[in-house]
Amino acid sequence: MQGEQDGNQTMTRRDLLRLIGLSAGGAAMYAAMDRLGFAGASPYRGTPALQAAPRGTSVLILGAGLAGMVAAYELRQAGYQVQVLEYNARPGGRNWTLRGGDTYTELGGFTQHCQFERGLYVNPGPWRIPYHHRGLLDYCKKLNIPLEPFVQVNYNAYLHSTKAFGGKPQRYRAINADYRGHVAELLAKVTQQGKLDAQVTKEDQAVLLDSLRQWGALNENYAYAAGTRASRRRGYDKEPGGGLSAKPLDSQPLQLHDVLSSHLWSGLTDGENYEFQTTLFQPADGMGRIGEAFGRQLDGVIRYHAKVTAIHQDAHGVTVSYDDARHPGDAQTARADWCLCTIPLSILSQIPINVSAPMAAAIGAVPYAASVKVGLQFKRRFWEEDEDIYGGITLTDLPINTISYPNYDFNRKGKGVLLGAYLYGLDAYQFTAMSPEERVRRAVEYGSQIHPQYNTEFENGVAVAWHRAPFTLGCFATWTDELRAQHYDNLCQIDGRIALAGEHASYLPAWQEGAVTSALDVITRLHQRVMAGGTA
Amino acid sequence: MQGEQDGNQTMTRRDLLRLIGLSAGGAAMYAAMDRLGFAGASPYRGTPALQAAPRGTSVLILGAGLAGMVAAYELRQAGYQVQVLEYNARPGGRNWTLRGGDTYTELGGFTQHCQFERGLYVNPGPWRIPYHHRGLLDYCKKLNIPLEPFVQVNYNAYLHSTKAFGGKPQRYRAINADYRGHVAELLAKVTQQGKLDAQVTKEDQAVLLDSLRQWGALNENYAYAAGTRASRRRGYDKEPGGGLSAKPLDSQPLQLHDVLSSHLWSGLTDGENYEFQTTLFQPADGMGRIGEAFGRQLDGVIRYHAKVTAIHQDAHGVTVSYDDARHPGDAQTARADWCLCTIPLSILSQIPINVSAPMAAAIGAVPYAASVKVGLQFKRRFWEEDEDIYGGITLTDLPINTISYPNYDFNRKGKGVLLGAYLYGLDAYQFTAMSPEERVRRAVEYGSQIHPQYNTEFENGVAVAWHRAPFTLGCFATWTDELRAQHYDNLCQIDGRIALAGEHASYLPAWQEGAVTSALDVITRLHQRVMAGGTA
Repeated sequence: MQGEQDGNQTMTRRDLLRLIGLSAGGAAMYAAMDRLGFAGASPYRGTPALQAAPRGTSVLILGAGLAGMVAAYELRQAGYQVQVLEYNARPGGRNWTLRGGDTYTELGGFTQHCQFERGLYVNPGPWRIPYHHRGLLDYCKKLNIPLEPFVQVNYNAYLHSTKAFGGKPQRYRAINADYRGHVAELLAKVTQQGKLDAQVTKEDQAVLLDSLRQWGALNENYAYAAGTRASRRRGYDKEPGGGLSAKPLDSQPLQLHDVLSSHLWSGLTDGENYEFQTTLFQPADGMGRIGEAFGRQLDGVIRYHAKVTAIHQDAHGVTVSYDDARHPGDAQTARADWCLCTIPLSILSQIPINVSAPMAAAIGAVPYAASVKVGLQFKRRFWEEDEDIYGGITLTDLPINTISYPNYDFNRKGKGVLLGAYLYGLDAYQFTAMSPEERVRRAVEYGSQIHPQYNTEFENGVAVAWHRAPFTLGCFATWTDELRAQHYDNLCQIDGRIALAGEHASYLPAWQEGAVTSALDVITRLHQRVMAGGTA
Repeated sequence: MQGEQDGNQTMTRRDLLRLIGLSAGGAAMYAAMDRLGFAGASPYRGTPALQAAPRGTSVLILGAGLAGMVAAYELRQAGYQVQVLEYNARPGGRNWTLRGGDTYTELGGFTQHCQFERGLYVNPGPWRIPYHHRGLLDYCKKLNIPLEPFVQVNYNAYLHSTKAFGGKPQRYRAINADYRGHVAELLAKVTQQGKLDAQVTKEDQAVLLDSLRQWGALNENYAYAAGTRASRRRGYDKEPGGGLSAKPLDSQPLQLHDVLSSHLWSGLTDGENYEFQTTLFQPADGMGRIGEAFGRQLDGVIRYHAKVTAIHQDAHGVTVSYDDARHPGDAQTARADWCLCTIPLSILSQIPINVSAPMAAAIGAVPYAASVKVGLQFKRRFWEEDEDIYGGITLTDLPINTISYPNYDFNRKGKGVLLGAYLYGLDAYQFTAMSPEERVRRAVEYGSQIHPQYNTEFENGVAVAWHRAPFTLGCFATWTDELRAQHYDNLCQIDGRIALAGEHASYLPAWQEGAVTSALDVITRLHQRVMAGGTA
């Protein structure tokens, strides 16, 4: 009866949608779909349609990362006078790609000269764009940034533990199929034994058994065992081929105990997470192409090499002092009616700024995550040629944590660059303490335990330790529930003539979408305040 | 102890590999890896190194699909005199892409003129290349065919049943998370209740519980319930954003009964199958680019418009009669020392050929699958713009079965072509009986139940029913275990001076890799026979 009611209700909905579509076109239909619950629920509703700003109103933006550039782009369109101060010699901030010929000097003075072959690169910062990050995706569309899939889960990449299977890497497909198969078999068995009778109706139990058989690749006896069904998930000992002697040989599933005790199952869920689900993207030719495209839009608006040293507001505007980063001591000032500051809190907390006590407390409260990425160039793409691994990620309990194979130039001859380490937490701090050269050396040494080819194929590498990045001093803001309850709203409120934006002012820490949506939110509120007369 | 032993053993293995790598380089190391069990077990070992053919030995190849062209390519390199007869006006066979400006006439006389916009296309035949299809991938590398990921599973695409949820499509991510979560919760509960004590050690049970919590996104009480953990899998009611009022709202999981009775769980496993696992590929700009590239390699070797009418062998060679397909009755003959026939069995079984009784029986024994694909062009990519669906597949219990969104030009403005139907079995026969125009009309009508935008955005379409394709009369050979036991080896044995190849002569039916590997297998054996003196 419930189903019937739903059916009738939906027919009415659909008829309605059809009529709307026929009479008013796609946009009206989509609005109707949304109301009727057919569409998603992203808080992003397109870029704000800001009405014309009062003539001559100026905004000084600190930081030409994504938050600052989104704000600058939109505020200029609304008619504001916009200037951006940026510490680096390039736009983008953490939106950044290292290519051959690039030079990078970290805190402590180590300078790296990237020697990658033309066309190869590593993204030291963000490297993935989820399908639901509508704000960023819309800017990619506006700026004509081609996107390609980022392969998060590769069934033929490895899950590796130094403590399991004698240190031998296991294919993701094998651990995945075997964990799932054993779980399905265990549940099927207790179902057949009547042990779910108290919780699940007999009718549902019958469907559950059917579903477990398909889902877990169980055989006709609801067992997960060697055979065609298991091999079609985990792979074959000898793969099917063509012609004579082409018959496949089934592989042997791992035992439940071996799968469980290996703890490799902990590597099975990354791709299930909303932010890493398919279809995940990367910009073609490096994440930095987004920052560069924004930078071109803001040609002449961004002043590079500007190291902010003080931010001071008064009743009429905001004055910002800055040094030329190339010639310290050469102090200059900029002034505007309003200031939007996107400087990471890790750095802003060290800059004099006269904001209210609650905002000042918020600025000082949030620690930044440590992270290190290492890019390695090899003479040939041995992961493809020898091991049939095209893109995707190998996870390991070694300190390098992650090996990510390039998601471009698949199946091409020649050299390749992979991400040879992506470290967090304690491992990241340890690598941060090393010289870049030493980080690269360690990444090669650890990685060779998974890919022995490293020993003969390695050419050169670069290593970025975010706590030593002079423009961020950390990777991203690490909010806890407690910190958010106490400080988040205070951080986001416009304080007199100063407002903040960036991934740190979002519920999407570390994600570029956090920067984009925080910028769109704050400029909308700033504009409302300006239109309402401009007083705090 | 076992673990320790494995560890020592592996250290020794690794040390050995390291030494081999240092002293002999990558290729030797890979050979060693393979022997030590580090590498995969594909039966494909690279293209055969055929020694120089006896001067003047000729091979006539029937069919310029992948099997025929692989054979022609390799046999020419080995020094054979090769000619290929092909029915169509183009190379590739089922390796085929329909683009704007193309014309296709099917059996029964219907001619379709494809009106897709430049750059848009549909692959009526094969459209995916698995990472383990090494033979085909190696030819793609040789022929410089750029590959891009084919998105099989898109967590934001739909699972749709007309009989569940009032016909409202469900996001893959929701059904996937909820089925998995409920399964994990059920198994966690019986584990906690001691109901696995007879089968699983207490120690393993503890690890199992940990793993189920992570794997199923269970909460601290091992329940699958609304909350951050479930939302991070299935999505939010309001997504996290930036700035003020950006706090996310959790979504509400579906009940176990609703998930089970919907039968939508049957759509959760496609991407788990070995042949559809990530990283799956498509050639950039259409599958047909492979056939075209092979065709260019064989320029002057392939005679197009050649419809084979008889194949006759004698003690010294093989004579093939053929018509010009454009001028029936204009009979011609070609002769060579050997004949490699790649004509689909559905057609070959209708052509006079003097082979042994076992091979003749095999040729006549294998039925061909029915299949229909429909490509639809729309004014805009509404699936991306309105619904955040980028590539991947929606599954439905409607006859259209599949909607596949294009895996290229992501996030671009403008028109798009999607696969609007991929029919099998009875549905395919019904669509085959319709005119192409009617097939397209039905695909649009059915599809609009999932995407109401079809009604306003549809522009034009093409529909290929494989049983009406004059060059195959069916989609692919459907072997059963019984048919294989009786006929497969008889089909693959060289019969006098005639040998067969194609996907039908493989354990990979429907896959191009079956065609490639069957060709490589048969030419290796043919060459051995020639080198041994050429007698049957």
